[in-house]
Amino acid sequence: MQPMNAQMGGYDRAITVFSPDGRLYQVEYAREAVKRGTTAVGVKCSDGVVLIVDKRVSTKLLEQSSIEKIFKVDDHIAVASSGLVGDARALVDRARVESQVNRVTYNESIDVETLSKKICDHMQTLTQYGGARPYGTALLIAGISDGVPRLFETDPSGTLLEYKASAIGTGRPAVMKVFEEDYQEDMKIVEAIPMGLKALHAATEGKFDVNNVEIGVIGTEDGGFRRMSREEVDKYVENFNFDTPEEKQEEE
Amino acid sequence: MQPMNAQMGGYDRAITVFSPDGRLYQVEYAREAVKRGTTAVGVKCSDGVVLIVDKRVSTKLLEQSSIEKIFKVDDHIAVASSGLVGDARALVDRARVESQVNRVTYNESIDVETLSKKICDHMQTLTQYGGARPYGTALLIAGISDGVPRLFETDPSGTLLEYKASAIGTGRPAVMKVFEEDYQEDMKIVEAIPMGLKALHAATEGKFDVNNVEIGVIGTEDGGFRRMSREEVDKYVENFNFDTPEEKQEEE
Amino acid sequence: MQPMNAQMGGYDRAITVFSPDGRLYQVEYAREAVKRGTTAVGVKCSDGVVLIVDKRVSTKLLEQSSIEKIFKVDDHIAVASSGLVGDARALVDRARVESQVNRVTYNESIDVETLSKKICDHMQTLTQYGGARPYGTALLIAGISDGVPRLFETDPSGTLLEYKASAIGTGRPAVMKVFEEDYQEDMKIVEAIPMGLKALHAATEGKFDVNNVEIGVIGTEDGGFRRMSREEVDKYVENFNFDTPEEKQEEE
Amino acid sequence: MQPMNAQMGGYDRAITVFSPDGRLYQVEYAREAVKRGTTAVGVKCSDGVVLIVDKRVSTKLLEQSSIEKIFKVDDHIAVASSGLVGDARALVDRARVESQVNRVTYNESIDVETLSKKICDHMQTLTQYGGARPYGTALLIAGISDGVPRLFETDPSGTLLEYKASAIGTGRPAVMKVFEEDYQEDMKIVEAIPMGLKALHAATEGKFDVNNVEIGVIGTEDGGFRRMSREEVDKYVENFNFDTPEEKQEEE
Amino acid sequence: MQPMNAQMGGYDRAITVFSPDGRLYQVEYAREAVKRGTTAVGVKCSDGVVLIVDKRVSTKLLEQSSIEKIFKVDDHIAVASSGLVGDARALVDRARVESQVNRVTYNESIDVETLSKKICDHMQTLTQYGGARPYGTALLIAGISDGVPRLFETDPSGTLLEYKASAIGTGRPAVMKVFEEDYQEDMKIVEAIPMGLKALHAATEGKFDVNNVEIGVIGTEDGGFRRMSREEVDKYVENFNFDTPEEKQEEE
Amino acid sequence: MQPMNAQMGGYDRAITVFSPDGRLYQVEYAREAVKRGTTAVGVKCSDGVVLIVDKRVSTKLLEQSSIEKIFKVDDHIAVASSGLVGDARALVDRARVESQVNRVTYNESIDVETLSKKICDHMQTLTQYGGARPYGTALLIAGISDGVPRLFETDPSGTLLEYKASAIGTGRPAVMKVFEEDYQEDMKIVEAIPMGLKALHAATEGKFDVNNVEIGVIGTEDGGFRRMSREEVDKYVENFNFDTPEEKQEEE
Amino acid sequence: MQPMNAQMGGYDRAITVFSPDGRLYQVEYAREAVKRGTTAVGVKCSDGVVLIVDKRVSTKLLEQSSIEKIFKVDDHIAVASSGLVGDARALVDRARVESQVNRVTYNESIDVETLSKKICDHMQTLTQYGGARPYGTALLIAGISDGVPRLFETDPSGTLLEYKASAIGTGRPAVMKVFEEDYQEDMKIVEAIPMGLKALHAATEGKFDVNNVEIGVIGTEDGGFRRMSREEVDKYVENFNFDTPEEKQEEE
Repeated sequence: MQPMNAQMGGYDRAITVFSPDGRLYQVEYAREAVKRGTTAVGVKCSDGVVLIVDKRVSTKLLEQSSIEKIFKVDDHIAVASSGLVGDARALVDRARVESQVNRVTYNESIDVETLSKKICDHMQTLTQYGGARPYGTALLIAGISDGVPRLFETDPSGTLLEYKASAIGTGRPAVMKVFEEDYQEDMKIVEAIPMGLKALHAATEGKFDVNNVEIGVIGTEDGGFRRMSREEVDKYVENFNFDTPEEKQEEE
Repeated sequence: MQPMNAQMGGYDRAITVFSPDGRLYQVEYAREAVKRGTTAVGVKCSDGVVLIVDKRVSTKLLEQSSIEKIFKVDDHIAVASSGLVGDARALVDRARVESQVNRVTYNESIDVETLSKKICDHMQTLTQYGGARPYGTALLIAGISDGVPRLFETDPSGTLLEYKASAIGTGRPAVMKVFEEDYQEDMKIVEAIPMGLKALHAATEGKFDVNNVEIGVIGTEDGGFRRMSREEVDKYVENFNFDTPEEKQEEE
Repeated sequence: MQPMNAQMGGYDRAITVFSPDGRLYQVEYAREAVKRGTTAVGVKCSDGVVLIVDKRVSTKLLEQSSIEKIFKVDDHIAVASSGLVGDARALVDRARVESQVNRVTYNESIDVETLSKKICDHMQTLTQYGGARPYGTALLIAGISDGVPRLFETDPSGTLLEYKASAIGTGRPAVMKVFEEDYQEDMKIVEAIPMGLKALHAATEGKFDVNNVEIGVIGTEDGGFRRMSREEVDKYVENFNFDTPEEKQEEE
Repeated sequence: MQPMNAQMGGYDRAITVFSPDGRLYQVEYAREAVKRGTTAVGVKCSDGVVLIVDKRVSTKLLEQSSIEKIFKVDDHIAVASSGLVGDARALVDRARVESQVNRVTYNESIDVETLSKKICDHMQTLTQYGGARPYGTALLIAGISDGVPRLFETDPSGTLLEYKASAIGTGRPAVMKVFEEDYQEDMKIVEAIPMGLKALHAATEGKFDVNNVEIGVIGTEDGGFRRMSREEVDKYVENFNFDTPEEKQEEE
Repeated sequence: MQPMNAQMGGYDRAITVFSPDGRLYQVEYAREAVKRGTTAVGVKCSDGVVLIVDKRVSTKLLEQSSIEKIFKVDDHIAVASSGLVGDARALVDRARVESQVNRVTYNESIDVETLSKKICDHMQTLTQYGGARPYGTALLIAGISDGVPRLFETDPSGTLLEYKASAIGTGRPAVMKVFEEDYQEDMKIVEAIPMGLKALHAATEGKFDVNNVEIGVIGTEDGGFRRMSREEVDKYVENFNFDTPEEKQEEE
Repeated sequence: MQPMNAQMGGYDRAITVFSPDGRLYQVEYAREAVKRGTTAVGVKCSDGVVLIVDKRVSTKLLEQSSIEKIFKVDDHIAVASSGLVGDARALVDRARVESQVNRVTYNESIDVETLSKKICDHMQTLTQYGGARPYGTALLIAGISDGVPRLFETDPSGTLLEYKASAIGTGRPAVMKVFEEDYQEDMKIVEAIPMGLKALHAATEGKFDVNNVEIGVIGTEDGGFRRMSREEVDKYVENFNFDTPEEKQEEE
Repeated sequence: MQPMNAQMGGYDRAITVFSPDGRLYQVEYAREAVKRGTTAVGVKCSDGVVLIVDKRVSTKLLEQSSIEKIFKVDDHIAVASSGLVGDARALVDRARVESQVNRVTYNESIDVETLSKKICDHMQTLTQYGGARPYGTALLIAGISDGVPRLFETDPSGTLLEYKASAIGTGRPAVMKVFEEDYQEDMKIVEAIPMGLKALHAATEGKFDVNNVEIGVIGTEDGGFRRMSREEVDKYVENFNFDTPEEKQEEE
């Protein structure tokens, strides 16, 4: 990240402390943990939302399915994460509980925006009160509410923004460049997936291995999240011409 | 902010500590977080209160509506914020709860000044007791009480002041200069909005993009907050001659 | 304040720690916050107590009435403050609760001295126990008990003293000089106000703006606090010859 | 106090820490706060106990009666203090509660020694456990138990000693010198007061102002504490030849 | 581990703090404790899971059986650990309780993945909240759920991954090299044990002592964990040609 | 105490921290507080236990009886202390409560060893857990249990040892030298007192003032503690030839 | 212990912190406290377990029996300790309570291994959570369970190992050397005691004083712990030729 001068003298060590220029260094450092994570992309379409992640594996001995990057939160909500894996799981656990509580209390599924705000509120708390560090993870929260696809993004500060299409992790700048050129408001899922794969390929600079791609979709029709099978993913991949992936370090 | 000498030696790191000259550096640093925020203006009129904010977006992929700068607190109260977004949302959540509690307890809507003081009291607490940092946000609290428009401003120290017209964020000095020249006590909302747009334009030095402007009004007639539609905003904007906005970094 | 040598090495940073010469630096620094505050004066008269404050405003856009320097605590007690505004309001809130509790519990209004001691006890606690800083405010507590006017002053250490006439804030030395020459034990309110204005004028060195003066009185006759109207204040001011006030920074 | 070498390196900052030579610097520093206080003397007589204090005032605008140096704890117990005024009041409040609790629980007045030990136990606690500083005050506790006059002295460490005659504050060494020469075991109150005034005069080196003297007595006859009137004090003073007092800084 | 520059200045001391590049040094240091531990391997087979550990003993006076490296958690789950022994036992105790709670609450044995996640969630907590250090241990969690063999690995950050075959401790790189060459998806336990022994031998560079090997297996047939007897282990060992082991320091 | 090198760097400041050589400096420093205390001796005899203390007074104005060095804990147990007076009183208060609790619970007097262990356990706790410093006092605990005289000694670490004859405070080495030569197992109280006085005299190097000696005895016959009267003490003293005592500083 | 380089900079001060190489310095320093303790040995025999300790006394005035090195925990369990005496007693108290709780809850005596693990779990906790230091003591836990002799050893990290014969304290290396040569699996108690004395003699380098030896045995026959009488010990000692012991410092 941007260089800091040597005299800052401790502002960056305690989360409950502002630096003289009004910054919270610990929050900014937590964002660095996100930037070092694998890339995850999300695209909002007219018929649903798509999440695509790069699950790089360092060894064939690893069960790829155990690398959690896309988490189902509820029937109609899923999350893609980048950054510290343990932190992401802790946040997702929290989201699942909130979702179930809503279902039990109001007898209906939780609104995607409501859930996203609850997660962000919790993340913000850890940037203001002592005794803990901020979360070192960013989330893309995808879901359908009242038949409308939603795609939220949150970062370690607890800021919440909604995107038409976005990305988190190392490859964010490269992915966003592709999306800004190719994204169409009225895209359908079948169009968004190739665009997402193209962007992910651009972001990984030839290290992209289609076998490591996981795709999750939530359609407005059925309103339910499902992970695509390898066969489905392969159908989308066939039309691409990828470089041979090399062995890579898995994240974190 | 104003320079500090090098020997201050730690007074500026712990919030519960005074510097030898009786200052609370952490509070002053939190104000810096506000000064780095986008500009928000508020104007008290004879027929209501107006809030205008600059919602700069860095990419068209972002859903502009998800950038929260004007928050509805209750039917008759709204808030514009500048500074850390997560902090602002946490404060607004608190304000909404206070407002509902008042409604349930006394069966009437909360007084704008009463609510403003409750928010400030909470902000002050975080400047005196350990274990947390001050809020890195300032609020313009607009509302109608007993048919009278009110416009309060609070800052990280918990100081509360009422203004006829004011601004928070980066552009405050430029906006205030415009207001001190143009503000009339008996202004109506339809007059205040152009003045606010002019001030915001002055404050952003050519980077002002009218498409990013959001306007919220609370009228004495109906006593209710509403966000203006794009069409309404456009009607006010048509009479202006703005520079072409460039791409900008979104706040925080 | 008086210079401190460079080797003091940390005694001045934690409130729960004595310096080798038996001083509590944090308390002394909090007093500096008071000394940087606007001037407030109080005068005990044969027929009541007077509080006069200087409410300097930096811009005409500010609602002068929202600058709180004189607070009504109960029908028979009012407080003038100097120093951190948020701290003063927190203390006044506390005083109001104590006052109401007394009314509810004993069915009579609280004694001025009793209330003053309760406030001081609380202020002292924050100088002895960790986890918080001392209050950065001083109060002039004026009231009538059993028909007798009382005027107490408290500072950040929790020390309580009663004065015939006193002042807090930047102008204290200049005001006290005037009072020591002019004060008469049998003064009436109508005589004390001109003396107070004269002292405040002396203390502000030509920056005194009579329009910014607020006067509160508690008379023995009616035993109730009231703020003087602008017209009343003007009657007292007419006999004076003030310099044109310049724009000034509002406090804190 | 006695000089400390420069390498002591931090032992003197945290109260719960011993220095290598087994000292608790914070307690010793708190004693310095006492040594900087005004002088208070106590004398045990055959017919009661006398407390005499020097209530120096810096300005005639101050109500001398509001300078609390002699506190009534119960009908038969009074306390003279030196050091931090707020700390003394906090301790006296505690003593008063203990005294009332004893009265309610056992239906009799508390024994002077029992009360003194309770105060000391509390003071000791603040020298051993973290989160607070020791009390910066010393007390002379005077009272009558079972018809016998008692005079206890406590310091910031919580040490308790009984004296025939003693003094606390700046003038202690000078007062003790007088007492060691003049004190007689079978003195009566009327003899002890002139001795106390003489000692106080010696201790203040010509700055002694008899108008600032306050005298409290607890007699064995009536067993009750009372403050002497100015007229009574004057009768004792008439026989002395004091220097003209100069203006002095009031304590703390 | 990888060198860190000298100016990092404290980021690596408190667990609740990010370094400027988004790392949690304390977690990375805890991993060093794991890397210094003895080697443990796990292999998932078509008919169960195998755990093999190296229980080096420094003296024949030590009861080898008391060196706990393979812990039975439940009938169908076992754990192999590397790193701080006390930490491993604390985690296993926790796992056993979770397992029993599940049995009592749902009247069925806990799912291996569910239990693994619960352990990881707890480990993550100690990397985010203050007042404790992360666990200095890694676990290989082996078990059978619904007749399917599972093999999870967790590290001090609370990351959870499933492997076909893996290793923790000093010898991990050497073991993984052997496994990547020799591992077959359809291996049976009787084939996996020789491969594990070969890998362990490679990892210990001639210091491998077959007498120190402990083997635990969980078969899909019976679904129950059992430790192999020395005779069983010997049968597998007979076909190997090991170097004479030298005396070694036992771990930690 | 033994010199420590300059690089020890902080191990000696926090009680919950070991130094690299396995020492707890704070405990050792607390022992220094004991070594700076006045000397107290205890001797176990065939017919009871004797405690003798040196109650040096700095001024005749001090009531010698108020210097507490020998405390009665229960009818059959007494304690002599050296070191911080306030700490000793806090420990004795605790011992008295334990003693009464035992009496109420079991309807019998507490065993001397049981009580001593309870005191030590409490002292040890303050050397292991944060938030407080160790006790800066040592105790000689004398008592009769089942007709047998017991004499225990405890120090700031919470170590408990039983002695035939021992001493605490400044004069310990000199006293022990005398005891090792003169002590006889079958001594009677009347023989032990002269030996104790001789030892105390040796320990104070001519500054010993027999008038400052206090003697407490617990006899097996009556099993009860009593302080000797001045007359009794004088009978023992008559046979000695002491130097004229000089004025001395009282302890702590 | 092994030297550490000067730049380690603070890792060794807080127990909840790992050093860059994955070590917990505070635990290692606590082990130094154990190494500085007197030597204790334990030997597991076919007919029971033997504990032998060296109770060095510095003065004949000390009651040797009060030096606690062998503690009875229950009828069938005893403990020998080395290191900080107060810490050992605190641990033993805990063990006794656990043992009684088991007896009350299950109506049977606690298993030796179960108890040992409970002690270790507690010791581990103090190495992971803040606010306290690790225990500065090691224990040899001897007992009989189901007729089988057991001998466990625990250290400050909470590691638990079972030995055939072991030693803790200063003399451990020398003792272990003797045991590795002389120990026989089928030894009987009468053979183990001479071996233990020989080892203890070797460990103390001529400073061994047989009069200071204490021996505790737990036999499988009667299953109960008993301390050997001086006469019994003497019978074992007669066959040895020891050097004259010199005066030594008692431990800690």
